[in-house]
Amino acid sequence: MYRDKLLGKGSNKVLKYTSSLTSSDRAMVREVITALIAHTKSLVKHNLVPKEVGDKIIQELKELCRNPEPLFTMEAEDVHEAVEIYLRNKLGSDAGWVALGKSRNDHVAAALRLKARRELIKLLSELIELREVLLEKASKYERTLMPSFTHLQPAQVTTFAHYLLSFDEELSQYIRILKYIISEVVSESPLGAGASITTNVPLSRYELAEELGFSKLVINSLRATGSRDFIMIVSSILTCISVTLTRLAEDFIVFTTPQFNYVSVAPEFLATSSLMPHKKNLVVMEIARAWGAESIGHLVAILAIIKGLPTGYNLDLQEVNKHFIQLLEKTTETVAIVRDMLKSVKPNEESMRADIAKYPLLVTDYAELLALKLGKPYREVHELVAEVVGRSEKLSEVYEKLGELLGKSLSPEEVINKPHEGSPNPSYVRRYISKALEEVKELKEHVGKLLADDVVCST
Amino acid sequence: MYRDKLLGKGSNKVLKYTSSLTSSDRAMVREVITALIAHTKSLVKHNLVPKEVGDKIIQELKELCRNPEPLFTMEAEDVHEAVEIYLRNKLGSDAGWVALGKSRNDHVAAALRLKARRELIKLLSELIELREVLLEKASKYERTLMPSFTHLQPAQVTTFAHYLLSFDEELSQYIRILKYIISEVVSESPLGAGASITTNVPLSRYELAEELGFSKLVINSLRATGSRDFIMIVSSILTCISVTLTRLAEDFIVFTTPQFNYVSVAPEFLATSSLMPHKKNLVVMEIARAWGAESIGHLVAILAIIKGLPTGYNLDLQEVNKHFIQLLEKTTETVAIVRDMLKSVKPNEESMRADIAKYPLLVTDYAELLALKLGKPYREVHELVAEVVGRSEKLSEVYEKLGELLGKSLSPEEVINKPHEGSPNPSYVRRYISKALEEVKELKEHVGKLLADDVVCST
Amino acid sequence: MYRDKLLGKGSNKVLKYTSSLTSSDRAMVREVITALIAHTKSLVKHNLVPKEVGDKIIQELKELCRNPEPLFTMEAEDVHEAVEIYLRNKLGSDAGWVALGKSRNDHVAAALRLKARRELIKLLSELIELREVLLEKASKYERTLMPSFTHLQPAQVTTFAHYLLSFDEELSQYIRILKYIISEVVSESPLGAGASITTNVPLSRYELAEELGFSKLVINSLRATGSRDFIMIVSSILTCISVTLTRLAEDFIVFTTPQFNYVSVAPEFLATSSLMPHKKNLVVMEIARAWGAESIGHLVAILAIIKGLPTGYNLDLQEVNKHFIQLLEKTTETVAIVRDMLKSVKPNEESMRADIAKYPLLVTDYAELLALKLGKPYREVHELVAEVVGRSEKLSEVYEKLGELLGKSLSPEEVINKPHEGSPNPSYVRRYISKALEEVKELKEHVGKLLADDVVCST
Amino acid sequence: MYRDKLLGKGSNKVLKYTSSLTSSDRAMVREVITALIAHTKSLVKHNLVPKEVGDKIIQELKELCRNPEPLFTMEAEDVHEAVEIYLRNKLGSDAGWVALGKSRNDHVAAALRLKARRELIKLLSELIELREVLLEKASKYERTLMPSFTHLQPAQVTTFAHYLLSFDEELSQYIRILKYIISEVVSESPLGAGASITTNVPLSRYELAEELGFSKLVINSLRATGSRDFIMIVSSILTCISVTLTRLAEDFIVFTTPQFNYVSVAPEFLATSSLMPHKKNLVVMEIARAWGAESIGHLVAILAIIKGLPTGYNLDLQEVNKHFIQLLEKTTETVAIVRDMLKSVKPNEESMRADIAKYPLLVTDYAELLALKLGKPYREVHELVAEVVGRSEKLSEVYEKLGELLGKSLSPEEVINKPHEGSPNPSYVRRYISKALEEVKELKEHVGKLLADDVVCST
Repeated sequence: MYRDKLLGKGSNKVLKYTSSLTSSDRAMVREVITALIAHTKSLVKHNLVPKEVGDKIIQELKELCRNPEPLFTMEAEDVHEAVEIYLRNKLGSDAGWVALGKSRNDHVAAALRLKARRELIKLLSELIELREVLLEKASKYERTLMPSFTHLQPAQVTTFAHYLLSFDEELSQYIRILKYIISEVVSESPLGAGASITTNVPLSRYELAEELGFSKLVINSLRATGSRDFIMIVSSILTCISVTLTRLAEDFIVFTTPQFNYVSVAPEFLATSSLMPHKKNLVVMEIARAWGAESIGHLVAILAIIKGLPTGYNLDLQEVNKHFIQLLEKTTETVAIVRDMLKSVKPNEESMRADIAKYPLLVTDYAELLALKLGKPYREVHELVAEVVGRSEKLSEVYEKLGELLGKSLSPEEVINKPHEGSPNPSYVRRYISKALEEVKELKEHVGKLLADDVVCST
Repeated sequence: MYRDKLLGKGSNKVLKYTSSLTSSDRAMVREVITALIAHTKSLVKHNLVPKEVGDKIIQELKELCRNPEPLFTMEAEDVHEAVEIYLRNKLGSDAGWVALGKSRNDHVAAALRLKARRELIKLLSELIELREVLLEKASKYERTLMPSFTHLQPAQVTTFAHYLLSFDEELSQYIRILKYIISEVVSESPLGAGASITTNVPLSRYELAEELGFSKLVINSLRATGSRDFIMIVSSILTCISVTLTRLAEDFIVFTTPQFNYVSVAPEFLATSSLMPHKKNLVVMEIARAWGAESIGHLVAILAIIKGLPTGYNLDLQEVNKHFIQLLEKTTETVAIVRDMLKSVKPNEESMRADIAKYPLLVTDYAELLALKLGKPYREVHELVAEVVGRSEKLSEVYEKLGELLGKSLSPEEVINKPHEGSPNPSYVRRYISKALEEVKELKEHVGKLLADDVVCST
Repeated sequence: MYRDKLLGKGSNKVLKYTSSLTSSDRAMVREVITALIAHTKSLVKHNLVPKEVGDKIIQELKELCRNPEPLFTMEAEDVHEAVEIYLRNKLGSDAGWVALGKSRNDHVAAALRLKARRELIKLLSELIELREVLLEKASKYERTLMPSFTHLQPAQVTTFAHYLLSFDEELSQYIRILKYIISEVVSESPLGAGASITTNVPLSRYELAEELGFSKLVINSLRATGSRDFIMIVSSILTCISVTLTRLAEDFIVFTTPQFNYVSVAPEFLATSSLMPHKKNLVVMEIARAWGAESIGHLVAILAIIKGLPTGYNLDLQEVNKHFIQLLEKTTETVAIVRDMLKSVKPNEESMRADIAKYPLLVTDYAELLALKLGKPYREVHELVAEVVGRSEKLSEVYEKLGELLGKSLSPEEVINKPHEGSPNPSYVRRYISKALEEVKELKEHVGKLLADDVVCST
Repeated sequence: MYRDKLLGKGSNKVLKYTSSLTSSDRAMVREVITALIAHTKSLVKHNLVPKEVGDKIIQELKELCRNPEPLFTMEAEDVHEAVEIYLRNKLGSDAGWVALGKSRNDHVAAALRLKARRELIKLLSELIELREVLLEKASKYERTLMPSFTHLQPAQVTTFAHYLLSFDEELSQYIRILKYIISEVVSESPLGAGASITTNVPLSRYELAEELGFSKLVINSLRATGSRDFIMIVSSILTCISVTLTRLAEDFIVFTTPQFNYVSVAPEFLATSSLMPHKKNLVVMEIARAWGAESIGHLVAILAIIKGLPTGYNLDLQEVNKHFIQLLEKTTETVAIVRDMLKSVKPNEESMRADIAKYPLLVTDYAELLALKLGKPYREVHELVAEVVGRSEKLSEVYEKLGELLGKSLSPEEVINKPHEGSPNPSYVRRYISKALEEVKELKEHVGKLLADDVVCST
C-alpha cells in the first residue's frame, strides 16, 4: 500500500524476496502491535487523532494482539504494512491516522527490543532453574569421587559435585551479564525517533518509553532507528552461553560411552537406530552441541550483515531479525533441555571409582606432598615421580614406591580435601552451594518482578 | 516407533527439540521418498521382499511422493520414521519390509546428495540466465562511457559493458566449478552403506546408484554415512557466489544514489518509506547484500557443527541440513532476482559523462603516454603529473598543461581503446562477448540434459 | 624440560607445530612473569620455599620482566617452560622451587586475565578520547546542515552534529559495558587453581588474587583452568565495537567520494596510487572497515575452538590466545586511528547544502505538518504528497504545491528544530553534549585510577 | 614515495596502521619480485625501457629475490613501494622505469596467485604423502578388528583398515579438487590489468602470463585487479580439508584415552604436564583440532572483508592476505603433522577386541541375518531383537537367544565380510587400496611436474 502512488504496483517475485512477513515478523508480531497501541494511545492523549478514531484503532489492535493470524494471509512488505492494511479493511481511511508521527524504522526497533527483553527474561528464568538442578545434584554428590580430566586424559581425583559446579559458576556469570543487559542495553526506547530524525508530531518520547516499560531512551534518533548494537551484544552473549553448553554436551556424550560409563541418563533423552537394535545415543546433547555451532553461525550472519552498512536504516537490517529470533528462542530451549536431562542424570560411582583405581590419579598428590615433606624443589620431585611412573609396569608399584618415600599411602577420599576454596573439598563445596542458593533465591524474585511487568498485549 | 522396545516411550519435549521433521526434512522429503523407492525396487529385484509386498510399498511411496503432506502431521523423529509410520498405517506390518538392508544414515545422505544435485542444477540454470542478461546488456552498452573506481574514488574511464563483464567472467568461473561439483562431488551414491559398515543384505550398491542417477559410489561406508564433506564443499562455493553478488549489490546501491545516479532500475525493484513520501530505495539489492552475509553465517554453522565430531554419524549432522537447504534455495533465488533487476537496468549516460568531465580521469592516460613519448622513467612522470594535479585549481588547467606536454589532448572516447584484452576497448569487449555467448549456448544444452535426467518422483 | 623423564626427547617438528612461544606468548610474557612473581612471593611468605632462594628467584623474574627477550631464543613448549629453563640456567636446581603449587593451567589463565584487563583499560581510554573528539566536533557543527540517509538515499535534513552524536551514544554504551567487564568479568583470579583441582600446597588464593589486583576469585578450579568464558565475552564485545566502527568507516568512504564530497579529511589519512597520479583514497577507513570483518573472523576462531571441547584444559585453548590478543590490540589501534582521523575532519557545508537544495528532503516535513494542519489521516496525506512528488518534474514544483497546501514554505534551517530529544534540534544537541562531557570527565578519572593500579612488572 | 607530490608526507601512525610490509607481504615477497622481473623483462623485450637499464633492474631484482630482507627495514606502504625505494637507492632515478605499464593492483593479484599456486602444490604433495601413510597402514591392519561408532557409541564390527580408508577416500576427493583449482582457478594471470582498466603501454598480457607459468588470463581487468574470488574459493577448500582433519584429530584424542586405548602414538607426539608427572596428552591433535576452528575464522575474515565491497580494488583486500597466507601455510603444516603422527600409530588390537566382546556389536548382524532367514519384515525383527537386548542382563544371554533363533553363532571375524564394496570386507579393502596406490603414483608424477615448473626466483 505504501508504494503505489510513487512507485506503482510491486512485483510478487520481488515481494517474495524482500518481505519479512512470513519469516521473522511472525515471531514478534505481538510486540509490533503493542508498540503501535502505545503509539496510538499517545496520539489520543495529545489530541493528535480524534479520540473516537483512536479508541477504535486501539480496540482493533488489542484484538489483533490476541489473534494476529489474519495478518499472515496478506501480501505486504512486512507486518507493519500488514497491520495498516488490516486496519484499513476494518476501519476504512480512519485507519490512516495510526501512521502519524511514526515510522517502520522506530517501530521495528521498539518491537525488537521488546522481543529481546521478553525472551531474555525467559532465558534468565530457565538458566536459574538450570542452576537449581546443578546445585541440587552437587549437593547430593558432594563426595562422589570422579576423575578430573585435562586433554581428556585422567588428571586427578575430584567429585561429581565439583564437576557440576564448574558449570554453575560459569552460568552464574552469564546470568549477571544478562541482568545487566536487560536493564542497561535492551530497555532503551527508540519510539518517537521516526525514520531517522524524529518527527514534527509533538508526542512525548518519554511517555512512549514508559508505556512500553522501557527505563530510558535511545536518545539519538539515527542510532535509535539505524543501529542494531543491542542485537549484536545480546546475540554475542547468547552465543557464549550456547558454546559453554556444548562443553557440557560433549562431556556427557563422552561420559555416556560404555567405555567411560560415568553417568546414566533417563531413556527419554536417548534415541536408538532404525537399523541397529541395541543403540542408545544421547541425541539431545548432540543437538545441543550442534546448537552451539549454529549460534556461532547466526551471530556471524548478524555481524556480517551489519559490517560496512552506511548509517541509517538499510533493509539489510531486516534480515538480521530472523537470526536474532532463532538465537533468542533456541538458546532458551537448549537451556531447558539441558536442565531436564541433568535432572535425570545419575553418576555411576562404580565406574568412576574403578577408573580412579586404574589410572595414576594420585601421583600428583604424592609429588606435591613429597616436595613439601622433603623440602626439595618441586621440579626435581616432578622429575623423580615422572621417572617412577615411566619405569613402573604397574600402578601398584608406582604407589608403593611413592608411598615409601612419603611415609604414607594416599587414598582418593582424602586427596580431595585440598586446602582451597574452589577445590573438590566438600566443606568448600558446601559453602559455595549455600551462597549460590541464596543468590538463586534473589534471582527468582527479580525475574518474578520482570515477568509481572510484561506489557505485551497486556491490556 | 523405533525406540519403544529398547527405550520406551519418548518425551514430547525431547522430540520437539530433536526432530527434524518440520524443519529441514520438508525441503527434501521427495528426495527421501525417491531413495526409498529405489531401495524397495532393488529389494524386489533381488527377491529380498515378496514381490507383491514390494510393489504395494512402491505404489504407496509414489503416491506419497506426489503429496507428502500427510507426513508432516505425524509425530516422528524425522521424515524417515514418518514414512515408515505412514506405510504401516496403510499396509500394516508389511510396511516393515522396507527397513531391510538400509539405515537412516545412508538414506539421509542419499537424499541430501539428490537434493544438492537438483538445486545446483537449478542454480546453474539461473546463473546462465544471469550471464545472458549481462552479455546482452554489455553488448548494448559497449561504448557507454563510465568512470572506473578504486577505493570508491573515480579512477579512469571505462564503459558500462566493461563493468558488467567483470561479473560475467567471475560467474563463468563459478559455473565451471558448479559443473565440476555436480559431476564429481555430489553425484556419488552412499546407498547401501547401512548405518556405518554396509549391510548383510545382498543388494547391489551400483544398481542403487544407477537408479538414482549417480555416476559412482561413495565407496567407504563410514564416509558415506558419517561425512558431510560434499555439503562443506557445496556450501563454500554457494557462499563465494553470494559474496560476489554482494559487490554487485553494493555497486548498484551506490550507483542509484542521486549523488551518483549512474543507473536506473525499474520501480518494481524499489520500495518507499511509510513515513517519507519521496523515498526510492533499492531494497532488493539490500536483501541480496544481506544474503551474502547470511551465507557466511550458514557456512559457519555447517563448518562449526562438523568441527571436532568423531567419525561416524552424529545427530549434530542433522542440524547441518537446514543451513544447507537455506544456502541451496536462497542463493538461487538471489541469482534470479539479481538477473531480473539487471534486465531492467538502464545506465544514465549523462550522469556518467558528467562525472568523467568533472574528475581527473584522464591524467593517468596522460601520464602513461607522456612517459612513452618523453622516454622518461614512469615514476618521474607520475610525480610530475601528481604535482600538476596537486597545484592546479581546476581540472581544465591540469588537462591544458598535460596536453601541452603531450602535444595533444586526450578524449574519454579514445582512451578506452587500450591495446589489451580485458580492457574496455570495444573490439576486445565484442570478442569476449561472442566467445561467452557460445559458452552459454553449450551450457544451456548441458543443463537441459541434466534437467531431463531428474529422477525425483519421476515415475 | 617437563617431558624428558616420562616421554623422552621431543621432536623439533612437533615443537614448531605446538609451541606458543613465538606466536601468542610474546604479547603476554610480562603478565606471565608478573603472575609468577606473585606466586613466588606467596611461597616465600608462607615459608614454602627457602626465603633466600625465593628472593633470588623474584629478583631474576623482575629483571626478566624488564627485558624478556632472552626467553624467545629458547626452545620451549611455551613461555612458562621457557621461564623455568631461564631460571635454571641462572640459578641451577634452585629454580625448581618456583614450580611448587602451581600449574601452567592456572598461570596462563591468570596472565590472560591480566593482559585482558590491561588492554581493555587502554581501549577504554582510547574510546573516551574518541568520544571527546566526537563531542567537540558536534559542538562545533551544531547547525551544520546535512542530509540524513536511509538506504543510502537522502532522507531528511539533519546536522553534522546529530550525525556524529549517533556514534557517541553508541560508544558510550560500549564504554559502560567495558567498565562492567573490567570490574566483573576479567578481574577474577584463577591463581591457585592448579592444573584442575587446586593444589595440596597451602597458599592463599585470596592473597594471590590481591597481589595481582584481582577483586575476587574464579572459584571453581575446573572453570578457573579450563574455561575461557571471559575471552568469549570480551572478544564478542570487542567485535561489536569494531563492527560499529565499520559503519563510520563506510560513511566516511562514501562521504569523501567527490560525488558526495561531504567531508574533508587531512591528507595524512589518504593514500594515492602508484599508477594513477590523482588518486586520494581514504585508506585508513578501508583498513578499519576490514578490521571489523577480521574481528568477526577472530571471534569465530575463538568460539569454534571452544565449541565441543571437553571440560578441563585442552591445548586447543592455547590457540585461542593469538586471536584474542589480536582483538585486544588491533581494536584499540583502530579506535585511535578513527579518533585521529575524525580530529582532522571538516564538513563541506556547501556540498551538503547543495544536496539539501537538490533532493526532496523537506517533503516529509510538509507531509507531517500538513497532516497536523488539515486534520487528516497521515496515510492519506502521505499518498497525496507521494503523488505530488511522483508527478512533478522539478523539486521547486513540489515545494510550491506543498507550500500552497500548508500555507507556508519550509526551510531546512527550521525543520531541524524537531520537538524531540534525540533530534538534530540544536537545543537538544547541546543538552546531550553537556551531559556527555560530564560523563566523559568521570570516565577519565575512573580510567586514571585503573591505570595507576597496574601491577605488571610494577615493582 | 608515491604520495609525496600529491598528498605530502605521511604519518608514522597511519603507516603503521595501514602498511602490509611486515604483516602479509613478507610471505609473498619472492612472488612479488618474480612478477616484477617478468614485467621488466617484458618492458625490455618490447623496447619500452632502455635495455641496459632494464637489465640492471632485473639483476637487482634477482639478487633481491635471493635475499629480500633489506626490504623489511624500510618504511613503506607495502612491499611494492619498498622494492621501488630499494631500487632507487641502488639505481637512482633509473629505478623509476619499472613503474611503467603496471600497478600495485595487478601485481599484488599476480603475486597472490603465484603464492597460492606454490603453496597448493606443496599441500598437494603433503596430502599425497598422507594418503600413502593411510594406505600403508590400512594394508597392514586389514583384519585388525575394531568397533565402528555412531554417536560415539559402539555400533558394529569393522577393521582399523576400514576406519583409516574413510579418511583416505575423503582426502582423495580434496586432492582432485585441488588439482582442479591449481589448473583452473589460480593459474590465471592478472598481469597487464593495470590499476583497473589495463594500460596504454603496449605490453603483451599473454607473454606476461607465460613468463609466470600461468595458463590463461583473468581477462577482465576490473576483475583481475579488484576481485579475490580465487582466494575465497581456495580458502574455502582449505578450510574444508582442515575441518575434515579435526574429525580425525577428535578420533585419536578419544582413542588414546585410557578408557578407549585403541591406538598408541609415538611419545614425541605427546606432551606432559608441568604439575602432574603422569600425563600423556596427545597435544598435536589438539592443535590440529583447533586449527580446523581457526580455519573457519580465517575464512570468515576473508569472506566478511569482501562482503559488500564496491567493485575495484579497495585496501580492505590487503587485509585478506594475511588470513589467506595463514590458511595456505598452516593447513599444509597440519597435514604434515597428521601424517607424521599416523606413521607412528599402532592399533591396540587387544583393547578393541575386548570392546567387541563387551558390547553388543553383533546384534545388528543377527537381526539382518534373522530377517533374511525368517522371511519377516525387518522392522519386526528389529523390534524383536531390541526387546531381547533390552530384557537381557548379560550380552552372552543376548547372543545365546539370537544364536538359537538364527541357528548359528556369529563371530566378529566373519561379520566383517559384508557382500559390499566399501565395507570392511578385506577383499574389498584390498581392491580399494590397490586402485588407490595407482592413483597416488600418478599424482606424485603430476606434482613432480608442477614442482619442476616453479618460476619463483628461478633464474
